[in-house]
Amino acid sequence: MITGKNYIGNKLSAQGSIKYSTINPVLNLENNWKSTEATAEEIAEATALSSRAFKDFRKTTPDQRATFLEAIADEIERLGSELIEIYCLESGLPQGRAEGERGRTLFQLRSFAEMLRKDDWQETAIDFAIPDRQPIPKSDIRKTYIPLGTVVVFGSSNFPLAYSTAGGDTASALAMGCPVIVKSHPMHAGTGELVASAIVKAAEMTNMPNGVFSNLNSKGIEVGVQLVKDSKVKAVGFTGSIKGGRALYDIANQRPEPIPVFAEMGSINPVIITQKALEEKGSQWAKTYADSITLGTGQFCTNPGLILGVQSPELDAFTSELASNIVDIDSMCMLHPSIKGAYDLNKSNVLNQAGVETLTTPLNVEVNYADQTVAKVDGKVFLANPALHQEVFGPFSVVVQCENKSEMMEIIEGLEGQLTGTIIAEESEINDLTDLVDELQQRVGRIIFNGVPTGVEVCNSMNHGGPYPASSDSRFTAVGLDSVKRWIRPISYQNFPSELLPKELK
Amino acid sequence: MITGKNYIGNKLSAQGSIKYSTINPVLNLENNWKSTEATAEEIAEATALSSRAFKDFRKTTPDQRATFLEAIADEIERLGSELIEIYCLESGLPQGRAEGERGRTLFQLRSFAEMLRKDDWQETAIDFAIPDRQPIPKSDIRKTYIPLGTVVVFGSSNFPLAYSTAGGDTASALAMGCPVIVKSHPMHAGTGELVASAIVKAAEMTNMPNGVFSNLNSKGIEVGVQLVKDSKVKAVGFTGSIKGGRALYDIANQRPEPIPVFAEMGSINPVIITQKALEEKGSQWAKTYADSITLGTGQFCTNPGLILGVQSPELDAFTSELASNIVDIDSMCMLHPSIKGAYDLNKSNVLNQAGVETLTTPLNVEVNYADQTVAKVDGKVFLANPALHQEVFGPFSVVVQCENKSEMMEIIEGLEGQLTGTIIAEESEINDLTDLVDELQQRVGRIIFNGVPTGVEVCNSMNHGGPYPASSDSRFTAVGLDSVKRWIRPISYQNFPSELLPKELK
Repeated sequence: MITGKNYIGNKLSAQGSIKYSTINPVLNLENNWKSTEATAEEIAEATALSSRAFKDFRKTTPDQRATFLEAIADEIERLGSELIEIYCLESGLPQGRAEGERGRTLFQLRSFAEMLRKDDWQETAIDFAIPDRQPIPKSDIRKTYIPLGTVVVFGSSNFPLAYSTAGGDTASALAMGCPVIVKSHPMHAGTGELVASAIVKAAEMTNMPNGVFSNLNSKGIEVGVQLVKDSKVKAVGFTGSIKGGRALYDIANQRPEPIPVFAEMGSINPVIITQKALEEKGSQWAKTYADSITLGTGQFCTNPGLILGVQSPELDAFTSELASNIVDIDSMCMLHPSIKGAYDLNKSNVLNQAGVETLTTPLNVEVNYADQTVAKVDGKVFLANPALHQEVFGPFSVVVQCENKSEMMEIIEGLEGQLTGTIIAEESEINDLTDLVDELQQRVGRIIFNGVPTGVEVCNSMNHGGPYPASSDSRFTAVGLDSVKRWIRPISYQNFPSELLPKELK
Repeated sequence: MITGKNYIGNKLSAQGSIKYSTINPVLNLENNWKSTEATAEEIAEATALSSRAFKDFRKTTPDQRATFLEAIADEIERLGSELIEIYCLESGLPQGRAEGERGRTLFQLRSFAEMLRKDDWQETAIDFAIPDRQPIPKSDIRKTYIPLGTVVVFGSSNFPLAYSTAGGDTASALAMGCPVIVKSHPMHAGTGELVASAIVKAAEMTNMPNGVFSNLNSKGIEVGVQLVKDSKVKAVGFTGSIKGGRALYDIANQRPEPIPVFAEMGSINPVIITQKALEEKGSQWAKTYADSITLGTGQFCTNPGLILGVQSPELDAFTSELASNIVDIDSMCMLHPSIKGAYDLNKSNVLNQAGVETLTTPLNVEVNYADQTVAKVDGKVFLANPALHQEVFGPFSVVVQCENKSEMMEIIEGLEGQLTGTIIAEESEINDLTDLVDELQQRVGRIIFNGVPTGVEVCNSMNHGGPYPASSDSRFTAVGLDSVKRWIRPISYQNFPSELLPKELK
């Protein structure tokens, strides 16, 4: 049941006077529940409680935390159809997507639990003493990792479950023994509260300290800003826009004690298609990419927003087919009127640039539905105009027709950091691609061959991040088991008695 | 031979008009060679060359880079007595220390080379495809790490070799395939140039691309600031003061494209001594700590500047013995008049605070020599006065006499981040120390039992870093093989043909 209140640890609290509703974008109406924004006092209460909880939570065993994570997954499952219903009402996304994303969320929680139950996940190092070493004896030194402390999580608009309240950031932080405070996303406050109730229930059932998790409602930016400024907060996880992520990054870095912010932000996910691929399978790729561009109404951070090819009749044919295929796909609802508004604005900003040609026929769509769009532009024009390099969040892609391969390489070398880069080519030309792979991989976190960038597999080999502005620190990933590395730090024990060493170092 | 010029890649260059000398602190005289500060044009030339060199350097094999690092070590050895002589003239440190530090530097370079020659250092992950997975097939995904790009290294004043031109930052960055530009430390510009000449020679001998290494002279802050602002620079390594490190950290974070800065900064390295240890071995520890506090004229980042005990006659006896032992040690020269000046100023600032009692008799020392000093203060006074928590770089330590254990814990809980924390106790009380270890380890990067914090072993289990302000990012270490993690980032290859995969993923 949605109460509209904040969770400050296990306690429901609504001291504030700012109340807000979420929006059903399909009906373009407010949903019939209201959430109360957390007050400054409630925020301070949550961080203080969290900081106290850390003293006990950091001493829990990996097994205890695994049990906690599994209980969270079980409790989310137990929310049953209510969660799916609220998710759909708040996101405009279809039921199948809601169920799929719930499955992914449960899988993530259980994957971290499984990792914790194995002994080999800890990267320890042990050097034994050499008492008779000359000129001075060598001490026994052993290294392990400990949690940073309270992590504040800013969930994303486009994954109300998998990258939000109990998503990858929360799961990985809790797995490592860091208490979590979620700054609830205003677009899906009801979904967030339901998931938060499951986490709180799981925490109580598994005897976790009160304050190991809090969920704070917020409509504007104030709650998030106060949280990131709070000296009791020790790290931040964020998924969202470059503007939002950068603002939090700046606040965190300007603190007297700066803290790490892992922000997964924007990306236009360039795709390079070779002449041979256009000749052999142009039509097939035009179909595949029409699907990829419109997947989830284009609201994926890995959505392919930029397709690069060298001018040719086959590239023209591909571009036309892509445009005609894409308008044949049923238009879908966007997450929120403001996201639809940003889509329209950012798209028209690109389309209105000199030299940009819109290839799709305008569609008549319902309010808050996205009219999928494909445009094309010459390489020279693209190179000269940074406005064309900006992400348009939604089902939109620009095909850049390069004069030749060297212009294409120049464009690639000038790209900002990206989550992904994709190469579409024929097997027979693999040996000609070495330089392209080398250049492209400098700018991306994941590089795909003959596939689509949409779809982020949750597995150990996945990197979801990339050079700025794809993420704020390319050395970490938001997805996969290595995502825990964002929330821990090494510590060495020198000459330590066995009784006082952490279990994994004994 | 010292030319006083900058190395821009393999080329000697001195276009500027700002010339400066280093100082022989023992004689308090300028040395008879001059270095020419790099101009804005030379800096831009170095970053552009470095960025071009990266295109080839990143494609070198681990074996090739190992050969390069070994050649650097060999060439530094070949500098022979000239290097040792210049080192001593520029630092005031004795020959034995110079030789020891050179040995450490060579060991570091060769350790990274050895690591590169083994296949198991790369943290790869491979998930094979599952083409028949439902509802969608799973792609083959493989993850490895690639270098970030050009790293700018700011060497330290106190380790002209091991933490400077060819020190740990440079060695770890080159090991990973990142070109390095050293902002030469003005206090040992001659030593720096000699080491740079060895690196450049090694780069030429092993066919590394021109620009893989540059060494830029600088007297003030301008060269460093321009380097950190340069968009071609992708990461920064720094060892030095909190003020300097924080300034660079802020500049790097305010860039349009922020870059990671690993700054190893200040620390007062708290030591906790128990009543039992005072009773059983107080005199022994008073001797051991007099040595540790004065080691290297107290100019170690791990120098113990704060000793905490509970008020007792034994603590009084320990404090008096520490004070009398320490003044019996021969006073030694500091690195530079400005370091001696800062020592005097910062020390007198502490000694002049209300409630602080100086325990050592004033010493008559030569100019630029440090008069080692011990003071004491009550826990209550220490708690109330943040001025007493500041690092005094030099042979100085404050003994804090706490009223009781709970006041001691309060002090520990209020400490800023530290490189190290030490516990001196008897074996019989180990089981009473769990809470102390838990609290102390939250604030330090390395925790020592019955030992001294000075002396940083170069080994895999070493962590040299810690919560801010000990370092700018507690998740990384400046020493040990893991220090390479500062300069690399993960990248995933999805559905990639074997021919295009990096060797370690095939």
